[in-house]
Amino acid sequence: MDTSLTIAEVHLTPILIADPPLLNTQGVHQPYTPRLIVEVVTRGGVSGVGETYGDGDYLALARPLAESLIGHPVTDMNRLFSLAEAAECAAAGEGLSGAAGGGIDEGTDAGGLRGVRSAAKLRLSVVSGFEVACLDALGKTLGLPVHTLLGGKVRDRVEYSAYLFYRWAAHPAPDAPKDDWGAALDPPQIVAQARRFADAYGFRSFKLKGGVFPPDEEIAAVRALAAAFPGQPLRLDPNGAWSVETSLRVARELGDVLEYLEDPASGADRMAEVAAGAGLPLATNMCVTTFPEIREAFARDAVQVVLSDHHYWGGLRNTRELAAICRTFGVGLSMHSNTHLGISLAAMTHVAATVPNLDYACDSHYPWQTEDVITRRHAFEDGCLTVPDAPGLGVELDRPALAALHRRWLDDDGTMRERDDAAAMRVAEPGWVTPAVPRW
Amino acid sequence: MDTSLTIAEVHLTPILIADPPLLNTQGVHQPYTPRLIVEVVTRGGVSGVGETYGDGDYLALARPLAESLIGHPVTDMNRLFSLAEAAECAAAGEGLSGAAGGGIDEGTDAGGLRGVRSAAKLRLSVVSGFEVACLDALGKTLGLPVHTLLGGKVRDRVEYSAYLFYRWAAHPAPDAPKDDWGAALDPPQIVAQARRFADAYGFRSFKLKGGVFPPDEEIAAVRALAAAFPGQPLRLDPNGAWSVETSLRVARELGDVLEYLEDPASGADRMAEVAAGAGLPLATNMCVTTFPEIREAFARDAVQVVLSDHHYWGGLRNTRELAAICRTFGVGLSMHSNTHLGISLAAMTHVAATVPNLDYACDSHYPWQTEDVITRRHAFEDGCLTVPDAPGLGVELDRPALAALHRRWLDDDGTMRERDDAAAMRVAEPGWVTPAVPRW
Repeated sequence: MDTSLTIAEVHLTPILIADPPLLNTQGVHQPYTPRLIVEVVTRGGVSGVGETYGDGDYLALARPLAESLIGHPVTDMNRLFSLAEAAECAAAGEGLSGAAGGGIDEGTDAGGLRGVRSAAKLRLSVVSGFEVACLDALGKTLGLPVHTLLGGKVRDRVEYSAYLFYRWAAHPAPDAPKDDWGAALDPPQIVAQARRFADAYGFRSFKLKGGVFPPDEEIAAVRALAAAFPGQPLRLDPNGAWSVETSLRVARELGDVLEYLEDPASGADRMAEVAAGAGLPLATNMCVTTFPEIREAFARDAVQVVLSDHHYWGGLRNTRELAAICRTFGVGLSMHSNTHLGISLAAMTHVAATVPNLDYACDSHYPWQTEDVITRRHAFEDGCLTVPDAPGLGVELDRPALAALHRRWLDDDGTMRERDDAAAMRVAEPGWVTPAVPRW
Repeated sequence: MDTSLTIAEVHLTPILIADPPLLNTQGVHQPYTPRLIVEVVTRGGVSGVGETYGDGDYLALARPLAESLIGHPVTDMNRLFSLAEAAECAAAGEGLSGAAGGGIDEGTDAGGLRGVRSAAKLRLSVVSGFEVACLDALGKTLGLPVHTLLGGKVRDRVEYSAYLFYRWAAHPAPDAPKDDWGAALDPPQIVAQARRFADAYGFRSFKLKGGVFPPDEEIAAVRALAAAFPGQPLRLDPNGAWSVETSLRVARELGDVLEYLEDPASGADRMAEVAAGAGLPLATNMCVTTFPEIREAFARDAVQVVLSDHHYWGGLRNTRELAAICRTFGVGLSMHSNTHLGISLAAMTHVAATVPNLDYACDSHYPWQTEDVITRRHAFEDGCLTVPDAPGLGVELDRPALAALHRRWLDDDGTMRERDDAAAMRVAEPGWVTPAVPRW
């Protein structure tokens, strides 16, 4: 095979990016969050970029995986998974700490907003950054966009949804970055936020992150949105904060205006119970976030829409396999998004363009991210992104911006490098503890 | 995008190929069977080949699909399915006969050795020939083997199984092609056939096509194989000819030597009942042959191994999606094969090389096919094919051979063009009717 596709170098650049004071059921994120930028460089001199989580556990696995990829062609994507497993074992052998160093420990932890946390899922999240970088490098080498490498786009634009958050005006930490969005703590402020999103980006559907205030307040906010944007699709996502009883009550009260209710309760048991009585579809990016969770959840009809996330699922090609599974089992599909930059948004847009059964507008956290590592930020028009037809992902790395965000990571004393939302909350409320689930 | 990848021409060449007098529960095939060779030629002057069923229904859909593909890039593979649907509607509008002309008729017919027969499945079979041709052309243009276009091989050799058949020495028709295999109608003759396969090709596992003789005779044949090849994997496939009771009895009697029992009974109901009591895995290429059949069959645990066939499932990329589904649901995977030529065997080998969860040696009908349309026939070694690393499929069309087989198709008076196994049997036994199921 053409050796110009062989990986000659892999660069890993951990960064810290600004994250605004958005509220969720576990409180607020820290003012900065870690991401990892993956860059593969081929012998042909082509560079491809990917992006994934940047917490220490992810870095601990990404480093040996980067080493082991040298000499492989960028086309070797089916082997990324076994290479990552081998890298994990190597890391364990060297006594590295953290989940990546756990080696054969496949223990899971149901906590956290990212759904189940396991060594296998962490591995897939790391792989996703490398797979996207390989696809980008391959596409650039061949002169083909990433969507073409995935079998070709079936749509020219991908629709996204406005992602509304309760929020503070500013982080309590004095040196945290500022923005001009102001506080959003009641229905009128949520409607104002939605209006600004609709005006600036053309979003036609709206998702409210809930689980922050008692359910009646959030029901009132959704009702206010329905009045302000009649007939437009609405969603509410309390991140599993509610009991079955509360979930059913909210479903009853908002069934006429919600296109789906997202993760009202935690775990397949509660979700199945809610689904049986809700009278509207339940979506998830917490109950089903890995392939091993699918079987039971689908058998019990616990979820009706899976919000895919190529970071969780191990890349764009695995996301397409998830789409095939959803298609086969009559389960809806859309896309989850949390704090990420333009590389990942490009990746999401490419894969979304190739999936026939994309049933809802995708989530996008992107408008909340004021910093980026690409030279030209993505621009939403009518709530949509046009699918890039340039080779690879169609984005260019902004090296000065990347260097500055990496410098921030280097200068951090360690508090921000590990995403610890409880720590962030304790700045505002000393003695804060992450609420138990169900919270209401 | 580079217009050299645009499809400039599509050539469809129906052919008739020799098929030996192998027996199955419905009798014997005709001495010749139709296949369709699909060739796409790009503006860049690169030609890619694919192969699929060649019966009239398939041709009736392939023709308008070929027309509609002109001007599309060979990379437009995700769109092949909707293009085929549109072609089917166009064909229906022009009043063409046959299933392809049925347009919106999605009625199904459970009969036949190919499992469920529906307009959707026929469409997928046609698409498979075009998809493989597009992959071949794309690979040749880019200098990449097809397995690389599918994410890269995870193994360098693909293992195949010997496909043993009860057979007559010759077809009853006087002008039918001859071979030197002789008759195989009892256990010693089956063992002799297996020995010849093992010696010539190195096959280490053996599948016997059953449903031909009363079950006790076939049990004796499998016992004879187990004695002749101790410890080597054996399979028996009566094509759904047995009742639940008979299936359970055979499973009991052969449970110690079969790695799986293939399609003992017909339909998900009977298969589920057999599976519950068989004590060994049930494989299928009849009960689950399309995506819509998966959900119920898996929920009822009716099958434990799916024998994929890229013709049935709509191509190599869909086969990978089927593999992902099997992986997710803990169902085994291997590969089905019936009368096909070297183009399809190359396609099978490429996709098999990329699937991590290929749990058993693949079936191969190929040694029974004495004719081919490629210049260099595939050579099994130790029962395996080495995965080709040449660009595309790694096969070259033998144009004189193709022309001769097409000439045979042109010269046929219509009897062979439509595969009609009952007609073939009536030559030997006037008054023969296809046996009702269950036969025993």
